[in-house]
Amino acid sequence: MDAVRERAFRHKDAAMIGRTHGVHAEPMTFGLKLALWHAELQRQLARLDCARATIAHGKLSGAVGAFSHLPPEVEEAVCAKLGLLPAPVSSQILQRDRHAEVMTTLALVAASLEKFATEIRALQRTELREVEEPFGSGQKGSSAMPHKRNPVGCEQVAGLARLVRANALASLENVALWHERDISHSSVERVIVPDSFLALDHMLARFTRIVKGMTVDEARMRKNLDLGRGLVFSGRLLLELTARGMRREDAYRVVQGHAMEAWKSEGDFRERVTHDPELRAVMSESEIADVFRLDRYLTHVDAIFARVF
Amino acid sequence: MDAVRERAFRHKDAAMIGRTHGVHAEPMTFGLKLALWHAELQRQLARLDCARATIAHGKLSGAVGAFSHLPPEVEEAVCAKLGLLPAPVSSQILQRDRHAEVMTTLALVAASLEKFATEIRALQRTELREVEEPFGSGQKGSSAMPHKRNPVGCEQVAGLARLVRANALASLENVALWHERDISHSSVERVIVPDSFLALDHMLARFTRIVKGMTVDEARMRKNLDLGRGLVFSGRLLLELTARGMRREDAYRVVQGHAMEAWKSEGDFRERVTHDPELRAVMSESEIADVFRLDRYLTHVDAIFARVF
Amino acid sequence: MDAVRERAFRHKDAAMIGRTHGVHAEPMTFGLKLALWHAELQRQLARLDCARATIAHGKLSGAVGAFSHLPPEVEEAVCAKLGLLPAPVSSQILQRDRHAEVMTTLALVAASLEKFATEIRALQRTELREVEEPFGSGQKGSSAMPHKRNPVGCEQVAGLARLVRANALASLENVALWHERDISHSSVERVIVPDSFLALDHMLARFTRIVKGMTVDEARMRKNLDLGRGLVFSGRLLLELTARGMRREDAYRVVQGHAMEAWKSEGDFRERVTHDPELRAVMSESEIADVFRLDRYLTHVDAIFARVF
Amino acid sequence: MDAVRERAFRHKDAAMIGRTHGVHAEPMTFGLKLALWHAELQRQLARLDCARATIAHGKLSGAVGAFSHLPPEVEEAVCAKLGLLPAPVSSQILQRDRHAEVMTTLALVAASLEKFATEIRALQRTELREVEEPFGSGQKGSSAMPHKRNPVGCEQVAGLARLVRANALASLENVALWHERDISHSSVERVIVPDSFLALDHMLARFTRIVKGMTVDEARMRKNLDLGRGLVFSGRLLLELTARGMRREDAYRVVQGHAMEAWKSEGDFRERVTHDPELRAVMSESEIADVFRLDRYLTHVDAIFARVF
Repeated sequence: MDAVRERAFRHKDAAMIGRTHGVHAEPMTFGLKLALWHAELQRQLARLDCARATIAHGKLSGAVGAFSHLPPEVEEAVCAKLGLLPAPVSSQILQRDRHAEVMTTLALVAASLEKFATEIRALQRTELREVEEPFGSGQKGSSAMPHKRNPVGCEQVAGLARLVRANALASLENVALWHERDISHSSVERVIVPDSFLALDHMLARFTRIVKGMTVDEARMRKNLDLGRGLVFSGRLLLELTARGMRREDAYRVVQGHAMEAWKSEGDFRERVTHDPELRAVMSESEIADVFRLDRYLTHVDAIFARVF
Repeated sequence: MDAVRERAFRHKDAAMIGRTHGVHAEPMTFGLKLALWHAELQRQLARLDCARATIAHGKLSGAVGAFSHLPPEVEEAVCAKLGLLPAPVSSQILQRDRHAEVMTTLALVAASLEKFATEIRALQRTELREVEEPFGSGQKGSSAMPHKRNPVGCEQVAGLARLVRANALASLENVALWHERDISHSSVERVIVPDSFLALDHMLARFTRIVKGMTVDEARMRKNLDLGRGLVFSGRLLLELTARGMRREDAYRVVQGHAMEAWKSEGDFRERVTHDPELRAVMSESEIADVFRLDRYLTHVDAIFARVF
Repeated sequence: MDAVRERAFRHKDAAMIGRTHGVHAEPMTFGLKLALWHAELQRQLARLDCARATIAHGKLSGAVGAFSHLPPEVEEAVCAKLGLLPAPVSSQILQRDRHAEVMTTLALVAASLEKFATEIRALQRTELREVEEPFGSGQKGSSAMPHKRNPVGCEQVAGLARLVRANALASLENVALWHERDISHSSVERVIVPDSFLALDHMLARFTRIVKGMTVDEARMRKNLDLGRGLVFSGRLLLELTARGMRREDAYRVVQGHAMEAWKSEGDFRERVTHDPELRAVMSESEIADVFRLDRYLTHVDAIFARVF
Repeated sequence: MDAVRERAFRHKDAAMIGRTHGVHAEPMTFGLKLALWHAELQRQLARLDCARATIAHGKLSGAVGAFSHLPPEVEEAVCAKLGLLPAPVSSQILQRDRHAEVMTTLALVAASLEKFATEIRALQRTELREVEEPFGSGQKGSSAMPHKRNPVGCEQVAGLARLVRANALASLENVALWHERDISHSSVERVIVPDSFLALDHMLARFTRIVKGMTVDEARMRKNLDLGRGLVFSGRLLLELTARGMRREDAYRVVQGHAMEAWKSEGDFRERVTHDPELRAVMSESEIADVFRLDRYLTHVDAIFARVF
């Protein structure tokens, strides 16, 4: 989390295009993306704390939980020695909803890491190249293709999330044991508990190294942002037009028309709208220029950072 | 939960056999079983509270979360009106780890209900018949077999847990959306969110009715407890023998020998051990009789209830 | 499978009560249960054959599947040497739907073993004791409770099915790789493929030993069958009454009335109906006696065996 | 499948960059990608046929499968009328491994559609824009951002695969019913069977429309292919150098050096290597030019098509 925070502040104002559906939407900054990760990790940390408190219980209540041969005081003393709380009531074992909470929490954490890793994988695509996970100077990206630098670390993180997720499921099936216990959960737990902890530990360690060492190409971010030559400001243009009294339907039709045309021909959207008489009837050239000011999109970044950190 | 508590107290001292691996283990009470359910439901309630707090957030931060067209103050005011907290940072949407926490929590609750329902299904088996879910006077257990009274309510509860569990998994796959959102989660959520809430609501309502109306046959419980004619006290006998100086290996060998013999022939275990000279060398007849006192197994039930309730 | 077949024939005519919802339904034989297992294993074997054929493919088509540097003939020759078929088309890798078919097939097989194991676990319950998994002469069922003989082998088989099932799910998530391959599947497969094969191999070996060595107590089966003192014949009584012209509603009411009464009081159902004047009005004593003939329930066992084996 | 085939042939020779890890790898054609989809759909179709044959069975064997009240001949006659095969042996119900095979098969099909949809989503990214799912002339991509055209159809297909996958899991849990049946599977099947069939039917219909109507921008494909100015031919250069006697380590070092430099500076890889004296020592300018011939990468496309179709 420290690595994410450090990077978030470093790239707080690095303007980049925000993407929805994989398609350019509106400007944002890379720091904002990382602030969102940080807030998500804070939630995950809180969940892990809960799960830890749930599982840190012990029991010494006998074969069916009735304290047949030892009084509850012994359980309390032993648990205290082990730094555990005694389960208020137990069968032959601690109830497996506790373990399932731990395992589903691990799966939740893994799912967040999967999201972050998927983001970097996407940003490292050849056509985007905004972020690149660390690549050692002597490293081979591919034995057959010398030009390759692949986000294999992030791919591994994304993959392992599937494993941790699947294990969580098995843990949920372990809850409904028969009567005061059957041992069907045991073989499952011997696999899924160490595997999920090991996998998540590895994912966290590897992802931390990636965040610390990743190359962030702010120039490419800016270049990609400008790729649509103004297209991404179409939303604000729409708002300004309606604010000036144009009917929303009309505004949408005109703006979408130019947007689609610019998109198809890879033409200059800003150029087009600046010279459209219907738009110029309600907005001056300088007012239109104002629509395309990037800084107006980023004014609230500091406020968001103040909320998160 | 009130129904479980009420029943727990009503059957607090109803002696029954505790079972591990489906096999008779040691005596306990039916109230103890219900106290364990109550404690588990308390944990589930706490989890639901957490999940509710996590999900009760709103966002109005624009297409990519940068508050491009509206300041954070508007978000705060709108959320306040809706009784929601504003997400400190968001993309086009609330991050789906929140929803996944809700869905996995529902799966945890469902898994507990599955466990309780499985317990009743087992106790309603013809050979056990200790508990029976409510059966209306005009109800048909089976159209073809007029003698049947089936735990169909508990079977339904157990089955639906599988559905809620599966849906939780899909919710975990919804976390890793692309960039500032893609809409792949939407079709999934339209199905799994209502289905899981509806299923769990139904499960809770139905299971509450079952707990309220179930027939608990304390006489049958006692009869089943005595089925092994003393076998279930073998653990205490072992302890008493070793406490009196017999080597544990010897004690185990002798006691297991009688136990297995009694088991095979459906003979009287107590009778056998009372007349075994090797045992009688270290324990008097009245000391052996003491081993078979049921009340010694149940002395801590009140203490457990004091912990839980 | 051979073990199941051998046991099926050995217990072909061992009468036992069939149970639905855990409740006594109608008579059947233990061999019939095993014949059903055999037929299910035959289906699983066919599925494994399919999956094996699907996965026994190779590829040597280069980095993206276009055979950039080697002609298809080399692929064909190499695959032939390895006893594989060449995939007609591939990307950098064999497509992962093939692996997912294998993994879901393993999960299907595991689910059947889980069913069989659950059956034995139930039949080994203290109150049923119809079947018992093998128990070594020097084995300890429980260190604390010398009388215990637990179906721990079947519990392990049932538990491991959860693991194989969960792994199948992860394999389905591995199908949708990016473009000509990303490597996110690799870390997952390194865990789930060996784990599922090892787990299932162990399950099959252990379950085979259990089937070979299990103790089948045909006397107890018969005893449990008679537990309801004729109750389980209520379905046939109903049919005979309606065949003799009694309205089905009337027949159901009368028969259910006696059945419920006999159930509650653990009384003798056959006794009751034999002396009911309403029934005797349409059936003679010997006709009623005929209803309770066990052999009439088992006449088609041979026909079923002929179908399966 | 017809739509995929038709498109495959239409774009058989449309050169595009093949991508591994999201990063440019080597040239291929768009038709090749579709041929791979077609082969995968053929496998899925075969699986569906198998699953259909497995499930097309009936039973009329009574309450526990022993044909207590009706002979097997009636079952055979009724099944024949319904176009079903009689299950060779059954309990109260058809065994649920049959249903689980159907449900896992649906999940396999859904996973393939998820893969195809994910491909189109990626190719529709603003920076790639090689393929676009159909977009109606009056359609709004986004109410707030008039310039947007989002792959929402493919996102929906990808999302629904999660649902079908989760349902398959629940179906696997339905296999291990108790004895001759318990009804816990019923509530689950009432949800998952129609939901999975409906979801997959919708996915197939929607994806077919997408394949039929998608815009394939072959010019953009070619433009993206040339983006790295020759980088993607580095693999062949490596091969040619070693074929001419250069040690592989040396060749890799030199080629990777140029590749990394060209990558970093977005410079011209071909230009660099053509003027490298170390390379020119073993290859003439025309030999190097030959390395960058696209057609040499695509010579085997027809052979692959001949295999698939």
